[in-house]
Amino acid sequence: MTTTDQTAPATPAVEPPATPVPAAVPAAAPARTDPADARVDVAALHDTLLGRWPRWRAAARAHAAEPRFWKDETLTMAEHRARVLDQCRELAADPDHQVWLAFPARLGGGDQPGANLAGFEELALGDPSLQIKAGVQWGLFASAIWQLGTPEQQDRWLPSAMDLSVPGAFAMTETGHGSDVAAVGTTATYDPDTQEFVVHTPFRAAWKDYLGNAAEHATAATVFARLVTRGVDYGVHCFYVPVRDGATGAFLPGVGGEDDGLKGGLRGVDNGRLWFDHVRVPRENLLARYGQVAEDGSYTSSIESPGRRFFTMLGALVQGRVSLDGAAGTASRVGLAIAVRYGAERRQFSGATPDDEVVLLDYATHRRRLLPRIAETYALHFAHERLLDLFDDVFSGRGDTPEKRADLETMAAAMKATSTAFALDTLQECREACGGAGFLTENRITSLYDDLDVYATFEGDNTVLLQLVAKRLVGDYGKALGAQVRTPEGKARFVADRAVDTLLHRTPLKRAAQTVADAVARPGTVFDAEAQRVLLADRVAAKVEAVALALRPARHAEPAAAQRIFDRQQVALIDAARSHAELVRWELFTQAVDATPDAGTRTVLGWLRDVYALTVIERDLAWFVVNGRLATSRARAVEGELDALLRRLRPHALDLVAAWGLTDDHLRAAIATGAEKVRQDEARAYYAAQRAAGEAPRREKAPRR
Amino acid sequence: MTTTDQTAPATPAVEPPATPVPAAVPAAAPARTDPADARVDVAALHDTLLGRWPRWRAAARAHAAEPRFWKDETLTMAEHRARVLDQCRELAADPDHQVWLAFPARLGGGDQPGANLAGFEELALGDPSLQIKAGVQWGLFASAIWQLGTPEQQDRWLPSAMDLSVPGAFAMTETGHGSDVAAVGTTATYDPDTQEFVVHTPFRAAWKDYLGNAAEHATAATVFARLVTRGVDYGVHCFYVPVRDGATGAFLPGVGGEDDGLKGGLRGVDNGRLWFDHVRVPRENLLARYGQVAEDGSYTSSIESPGRRFFTMLGALVQGRVSLDGAAGTASRVGLAIAVRYGAERRQFSGATPDDEVVLLDYATHRRRLLPRIAETYALHFAHERLLDLFDDVFSGRGDTPEKRADLETMAAAMKATSTAFALDTLQECREACGGAGFLTENRITSLYDDLDVYATFEGDNTVLLQLVAKRLVGDYGKALGAQVRTPEGKARFVADRAVDTLLHRTPLKRAAQTVADAVARPGTVFDAEAQRVLLADRVAAKVEAVALALRPARHAEPAAAQRIFDRQQVALIDAARSHAELVRWELFTQAVDATPDAGTRTVLGWLRDVYALTVIERDLAWFVVNGRLATSRARAVEGELDALLRRLRPHALDLVAAWGLTDDHLRAAIATGAEKVRQDEARAYYAAQRAAGEAPRREKAPRR
Repeated sequence: MTTTDQTAPATPAVEPPATPVPAAVPAAAPARTDPADARVDVAALHDTLLGRWPRWRAAARAHAAEPRFWKDETLTMAEHRARVLDQCRELAADPDHQVWLAFPARLGGGDQPGANLAGFEELALGDPSLQIKAGVQWGLFASAIWQLGTPEQQDRWLPSAMDLSVPGAFAMTETGHGSDVAAVGTTATYDPDTQEFVVHTPFRAAWKDYLGNAAEHATAATVFARLVTRGVDYGVHCFYVPVRDGATGAFLPGVGGEDDGLKGGLRGVDNGRLWFDHVRVPRENLLARYGQVAEDGSYTSSIESPGRRFFTMLGALVQGRVSLDGAAGTASRVGLAIAVRYGAERRQFSGATPDDEVVLLDYATHRRRLLPRIAETYALHFAHERLLDLFDDVFSGRGDTPEKRADLETMAAAMKATSTAFALDTLQECREACGGAGFLTENRITSLYDDLDVYATFEGDNTVLLQLVAKRLVGDYGKALGAQVRTPEGKARFVADRAVDTLLHRTPLKRAAQTVADAVARPGTVFDAEAQRVLLADRVAAKVEAVALALRPARHAEPAAAQRIFDRQQVALIDAARSHAELVRWELFTQAVDATPDAGTRTVLGWLRDVYALTVIERDLAWFVVNGRLATSRARAVEGELDALLRRLRPHALDLVAAWGLTDDHLRAAIATGAEKVRQDEARAYYAAQRAAGEAPRREKAPRR
Repeated sequence: MTTTDQTAPATPAVEPPATPVPAAVPAAAPARTDPADARVDVAALHDTLLGRWPRWRAAARAHAAEPRFWKDETLTMAEHRARVLDQCRELAADPDHQVWLAFPARLGGGDQPGANLAGFEELALGDPSLQIKAGVQWGLFASAIWQLGTPEQQDRWLPSAMDLSVPGAFAMTETGHGSDVAAVGTTATYDPDTQEFVVHTPFRAAWKDYLGNAAEHATAATVFARLVTRGVDYGVHCFYVPVRDGATGAFLPGVGGEDDGLKGGLRGVDNGRLWFDHVRVPRENLLARYGQVAEDGSYTSSIESPGRRFFTMLGALVQGRVSLDGAAGTASRVGLAIAVRYGAERRQFSGATPDDEVVLLDYATHRRRLLPRIAETYALHFAHERLLDLFDDVFSGRGDTPEKRADLETMAAAMKATSTAFALDTLQECREACGGAGFLTENRITSLYDDLDVYATFEGDNTVLLQLVAKRLVGDYGKALGAQVRTPEGKARFVADRAVDTLLHRTPLKRAAQTVADAVARPGTVFDAEAQRVLLADRVAAKVEAVALALRPARHAEPAAAQRIFDRQQVALIDAARSHAELVRWELFTQAVDATPDAGTRTVLGWLRDVYALTVIERDLAWFVVNGRLATSRARAVEGELDALLRRLRPHALDLVAAWGLTDDHLRAAIATGAEKVRQDEARAYYAAQRAAGEAPRREKAPRR
């Protein structure tokens, strides 16, 4: 497998060499400030959060603040679709070329896949429909040509895909098969007489479905179909298939389709269905990087194993998952920024004095609703930055090894599955935390929720992705059993270390010097970082080991019995994968804290990391207690410790949100503009003036003055 | 306080005497069937679930199945609003008069508030906008006249409110004050010279906001304002205020407003804002049932305490909460029916044999996602039926006592706050369980989610409501301390029993004969009903006691210190209230199981109740372990026991859903019509025919035949 063939003639870097990632920064000295005086250096933190490609991220964010890229909530579906297509054309025509950045320099791209995604995921700030429509065109359709095509095929089809003169659909999913791509029904049968592939949809369930661009705009599609030649089915391959007349917009002969119509969100994307009735395309339209059919119909591939070949081709999909992880963070930040700004101004119900209503964020329940989500959003961010690194290494070809590809796929699956779920949950919490105002479209959150909803199931259903992650973890455990580690404790530690190491570029986890019980028994009101690490790493090891042992009999069982054994472990598998994702995030959050140069910022980020850890531990508290990892007395203290941390963080909430760099033009929420404070000040001034003038009515039963 | 004055001259009952509620049915004998053979008698269960007013519920459900009442997803906001107004007119003109059923018989109503709500909550099946628009007109605007007006005022204003010739707004909430109604800024100052009230909005935060009917259709409003007369502020009262010219639709002089515009859902309801600039209404426009102002400006009320008077007037709101609890159940049933029907047909990924893909519901994770929600939806239903009983007792005047009113308000708050949250969570889970198909509007769930979203914060924010519940529980605990119970165990048991008794019409909880530890230590793979009862009741008692004790110092503290003490307990307060709601539901679910005559149905419902109990216990497992209620070995078994129960319930899933009586015309989801099975059968037949004809391509690497 050659993986560097398309990245060779790099143009001069469009950007200066990447800033070192947090892990590369020397560990900072312990905080010297008095914690009570700790302040966040908002500007510096903002710059850090811009990440490794600040220029591209900042440029995309600036784009998203321009009204021409904003979602217009008043449009009909037809108008919205047309507008988003126009917006995509503007992006394609933009001199900064961010949407081309991933593609080969020889075709006008920048050979910078990581930088491209950094910018791409900010597009959601304008309109998630724009992000997804752009993702379909450049991240899926063009990317399939780039990833699965030969250099000649790239030269032929990429330019028109890049400049949007050929809008394209990525025709993988079928009505009958979503995440199970291996089972698609569409076939592409080679006909040696004409040297053509015959692309065919044999039954209704094999219609391609949910494809962006398919309902209206696509004139071509990258179609995934089972390649059949000489009577042999070589499994799923990708074909370049023209589908519409570019001039008239009419389907080409043999191609048909249907509009998916209204959706819960993303109404600016024209999703639709496609079917093929013996549609003939030239032999050269098989995207042939990983598999080729000669004129005589003989099949060759550089990848011997059909299974490995299939997963290699599907590897093109990982880009989508990486970018959705980033977009989930973007959306969470928008929701939280709105809710936190409003919650810091809005007052409701009497406080200590009757005329002094309490600010929402000064309620314990309101802090509980929002502040742990700020912490988790930071955790998402730091993990996502590492995911981008890994993605850039692999897709730029600068560090493309089978191991890194596998790590990338596992980490992307773990991050996407958990961050998109988190984003939805967070947006809903934010919407409710803003009360009735949160329900108004003018305050943005419901609209964002609707658009983000499908992130949970597209580009790989979250449940399916978590299962993939868990199978990798269990596989690693199997390898550990074959290694020299023999004691149960050793095995567990080995697994935890290795699983995490793998995903973190083998930056070894600091080995736990003590047992879990020792580590968490140390004095202090909150678990320190080492105790957190031990608790979270040991949890993954223990869960993976339990599942791996329970699954072992399935290897020698009849299929039906194996299925039953698997069924009994499926819930635990998913659970282990979630725990793994939390551990990875905790680790990368901690590395980022340690690498923060400003002492005040480091202190506050440390508290925030503690909040993340305690939130994760509290969510799974029963596991820790039932499995003897936490004494009940320690477990009982978690809730109070978390609440105390949230009180300590309360004064920093607005700073932590401000560091995200979201302006009013990004938030576009009437309640997050300070309007609430203006109204409150006016009301208080009214009552004060009334009292001063002696015109305030007495309260019934109040003593007469 | 007289509460029966408006129900006296009852017309002949429109419906035969109510069927006995489940608790009144003699406890059935233990199941005699072999559990493995247990079958649900779907028709009988369906009839039971129609509840106490089957005629009205069935009629409303039949209405909702008529296309004229369906939500049309293609309409613009303006068209949708107009259509929903027309639908309301059709309801008003319907000979069955369900929307009038609650009102006094002397004005054409039926004196049947419970039957009215039973029908009302089914309207959400057609279009939640229709339900809410109808709720604004008859449940809030007209209901305020009915509940807060004198008989003369009812005679004057109710007929035109009932027949919709005067569409009205319920002008309570202000931009600056949502659930905190006591703090509204609008004033109604009595002018004895003209014998008028001057209704005035003193500042922007006091604009009435989020009012249904206010943006376009309302020509009058019931306006909540602070009544000021002779220089004294008597607190919030309700006034009948014309706001628009019925002929032109123009605002009357001094009245202004604003459209709330697009919302996350319920776009068929014209929510808007209203303000008043010294608008004069006659003295007689004060709805005077609980407070009167004489010509000379002197104020009188039958309720001495301003606080109690305020809460009595707000009692009119409880009807909305009761009905939202019902609608939350309705929406949950729709989502689950769609997801379960689809999940029982959809196949994905290979099963025991390569050609035999596995039905989604045969995956452990899919069962976990859906079946516990079926159980919780049944629990919601049985509790809701009891809530309707209580509501009917109080609002019909047939059993209106201060204690019952207080019970009704507490139970409504506890049920509404938890069921609306559950409905949203369930709809989202159902949408994701249907994959990409779930995101299409043609499959209904996203649309329903959008409409239900605001149920979590209107008619009382869920967090605020749970706090009200908790304060009641803590108050009851305080009374218990004053009673003769002296030992800690006795106190806890007293509180749990009493809190639940209170809400269940004082049907005493069976006293726990053993301690919790004894009860749950009995043999058996699953906790039996008695063990479940003890665990859940004791949990409420323990949580309430802990909070009550922690709050006690606040009684003698300075306001600021008291606020701090409260803040430390707020999270625990909300948690206790949720636990309480779960206990109430468990108890009423259990009563319904015991009252089920058919043995097979009783057996299956019993498992379902066990699933509910284990789900609740698993959610809070850490509490049970950390607080010594469950040994770790027992706690560790919960997950497996729950999974085993779900496997046992799997064959009954479709029956349990069928008993809800939802037809294709209620679900209106393309994936819940059997279409998926048709597609799958076609695909399988295709492959079978191909194999039979010897035309199937060989799989690569498969042995040559």
